[in-house]
Amino acid sequence: MNDKLMLMIPGPTPVPEQVLLAMAKHPIGHRSGDFTKIMAEVTQNLKWLHQTQSDVLMLAASGTGAMEAGIINFLSPGDRVLVTSNGKFGERWVELCQAYGLNTETVTAEWGQAIDPEQVREKLAADTTKQLKAVIVTHSETSTGVLNDLEAINRHVKAHGQALIIVDVVTSLGAINIPFDEWELDVVASGSQKGFMIPPGLGFVAVSPKAWETYKTAKLPRYYLDLGKYRKDAAKNSTPFTPPVNLIFALQAALKMMQAEGLENIFARHQRLTAATRAAIKALGLPLFAPDDAASPAITAVAPQGVDAEQIRAVLKKRFDIVMAGGQDHLNGKIFRIGHLGFVGDRDILAAVASLEATLQELGYQGFTPGAGVAAASQVFVKA
Amino acid sequence: MNDKLMLMIPGPTPVPEQVLLAMAKHPIGHRSGDFTKIMAEVTQNLKWLHQTQSDVLMLAASGTGAMEAGIINFLSPGDRVLVTSNGKFGERWVELCQAYGLNTETVTAEWGQAIDPEQVREKLAADTTKQLKAVIVTHSETSTGVLNDLEAINRHVKAHGQALIIVDVVTSLGAINIPFDEWELDVVASGSQKGFMIPPGLGFVAVSPKAWETYKTAKLPRYYLDLGKYRKDAAKNSTPFTPPVNLIFALQAALKMMQAEGLENIFARHQRLTAATRAAIKALGLPLFAPDDAASPAITAVAPQGVDAEQIRAVLKKRFDIVMAGGQDHLNGKIFRIGHLGFVGDRDILAAVASLEATLQELGYQGFTPGAGVAAASQVFVKA
Repeated sequence: MNDKLMLMIPGPTPVPEQVLLAMAKHPIGHRSGDFTKIMAEVTQNLKWLHQTQSDVLMLAASGTGAMEAGIINFLSPGDRVLVTSNGKFGERWVELCQAYGLNTETVTAEWGQAIDPEQVREKLAADTTKQLKAVIVTHSETSTGVLNDLEAINRHVKAHGQALIIVDVVTSLGAINIPFDEWELDVVASGSQKGFMIPPGLGFVAVSPKAWETYKTAKLPRYYLDLGKYRKDAAKNSTPFTPPVNLIFALQAALKMMQAEGLENIFARHQRLTAATRAAIKALGLPLFAPDDAASPAITAVAPQGVDAEQIRAVLKKRFDIVMAGGQDHLNGKIFRIGHLGFVGDRDILAAVASLEATLQELGYQGFTPGAGVAAASQVFVKA
Repeated sequence: MNDKLMLMIPGPTPVPEQVLLAMAKHPIGHRSGDFTKIMAEVTQNLKWLHQTQSDVLMLAASGTGAMEAGIINFLSPGDRVLVTSNGKFGERWVELCQAYGLNTETVTAEWGQAIDPEQVREKLAADTTKQLKAVIVTHSETSTGVLNDLEAINRHVKAHGQALIIVDVVTSLGAINIPFDEWELDVVASGSQKGFMIPPGLGFVAVSPKAWETYKTAKLPRYYLDLGKYRKDAAKNSTPFTPPVNLIFALQAALKMMQAEGLENIFARHQRLTAATRAAIKALGLPLFAPDDAASPAITAVAPQGVDAEQIRAVLKKRFDIVMAGGQDHLNGKIFRIGHLGFVGDRDILAAVASLEATLQELGYQGFTPGAGVAAASQVFVKA
């Protein structure tokens, strides 16, 4: 049906009507007093969301642009960095570091498995001369639905004492607790079309005082992504370059909604959606791609057997107007991914699971009792 | 009055209602077939607007981000570049080149004056060993309302034969004729909140085959702004990183409107608006900051005497809900700037001039006959 699309991909995520309407307001001048007031409010609320007193800066860029800013502002050519890589985004940060001539080491895991924090600890412990300048971690690996153990990895980085921890929180921020100040994280980067519940086009970078110290001597070239410029102007509730005014209207509305719901409730909702989705998939006899103890709160990847992942996606789209994501790179055709990030409620999961059941029946898949998925998801919701 | 704001700044420019409503549509997946179709249409229409068969690439970035991409993809550390600088944006490109370690020479003119193409010719003629890799030009200098003579400068660059010409067309594209292929331009960069008639957040870069040749050996580091990645994915009507989907909905609607109006009519309209604005300002006895033969088609800067520029702006805003721009840097308080770029019609100029007249009367300015500005602008419209 026209205009009936339901997005269950890891981004863009669903956008509330009041956010769409805020975005459709006519733009105002970005150097005006009215816009300055919006910037002040939005900046305060971004700090609330990031659980920090440090700077949270906004860029007109995708999450990758934000992550690039989070890396290149704090390093110099030839610096040694350690990157965890267990999926497409981990690989992207390795590529990015190499493109900038960083001396890049990795700790890897199979796609679908979590990084072993112990391997990170060993690498850091071996660096007795403190040459490692940064550890770069993908928190929720969007390509596989795996959540890496950021708290444990960060503990090892803190034990090292020198290296910065730079984290891709693109699909974890606003879905699971990431207390920036309490954990003493240094840099976290994210994008608007995820937990923020607004369309793509805005990137966010939170920066610790320790990272700003490093910025002073970091020599990788940058201009548009120079966070020092953004920090300087943020002090006046302004931006160095024209900001995406209408996306910031949208952000203002979305952050108000998030504050009304409250962080604890937002995290509990994502935990509940994840648990219900996983319970349903198990009840349908379909293999989950990520283990239970490393389940992303944003996305659940399924590796169906006896039924084709791409056929499932095609029928869901055609018959039920639900878009789920496919697998990326070598996982193309092997998995499908169910997004449950941002503006997603319990009803959405029930609708998705019910539609998935109907789809499996249409495709002649035999491995489940019709109704079992919905029953399992409902059980989670009833107990929650 | 609430919701009554009329933007006459050089950006964001006014956005048509149908563009705002297109933008307020719920996002769709950027890897979907539906989005691929939109990308194909938009890309074709961008080529039409740029008058080129070459690539026109879109980035989630401001105009500065687009211009940075247009520079760093085609140069290597230490390369010699010549930058024309006669305002804030010319100075910005000098800073940017220096930030990337380019060997940066300049041809300058006073703010408010045009670059002398002869000085560019001399610099290029002196480079007999063809060391200059690029000439970087700001076409319409937004900070002063000066239009530099791109056609003449480009002729000298073509005579040099080696250097690329890289042009900031942020406030000239969609306002004045810039035939990319016919003039054999190499790189032009722009931003969405200008002649495109959509809100800020999208940057555009057109790239010639000659520039792509240079790309192959250019060594400045880049990842998010790596245009090769965008080109590769554009061939599949896709993007390497999540695009600002809703701004592209807006772009789709705006480009359709531009095609319906036609390039010749768009250019004629901007010429008419510029002529009417300048005729009115002269009739009001206020000094124009840029000379007639170097008048930007996007913005007219006025350097009032006997009446305060910031007071004029304040009254226009408070009494008539019209926002004009102030002066930047050392011109702050010395000039005000009237934007007439993008979705602006003859009526808007008449409203602005009439409001300016009322403002001047309120401020006790004596140097004009009330009604003279509107009469002069009307004369231009009647004759056009």
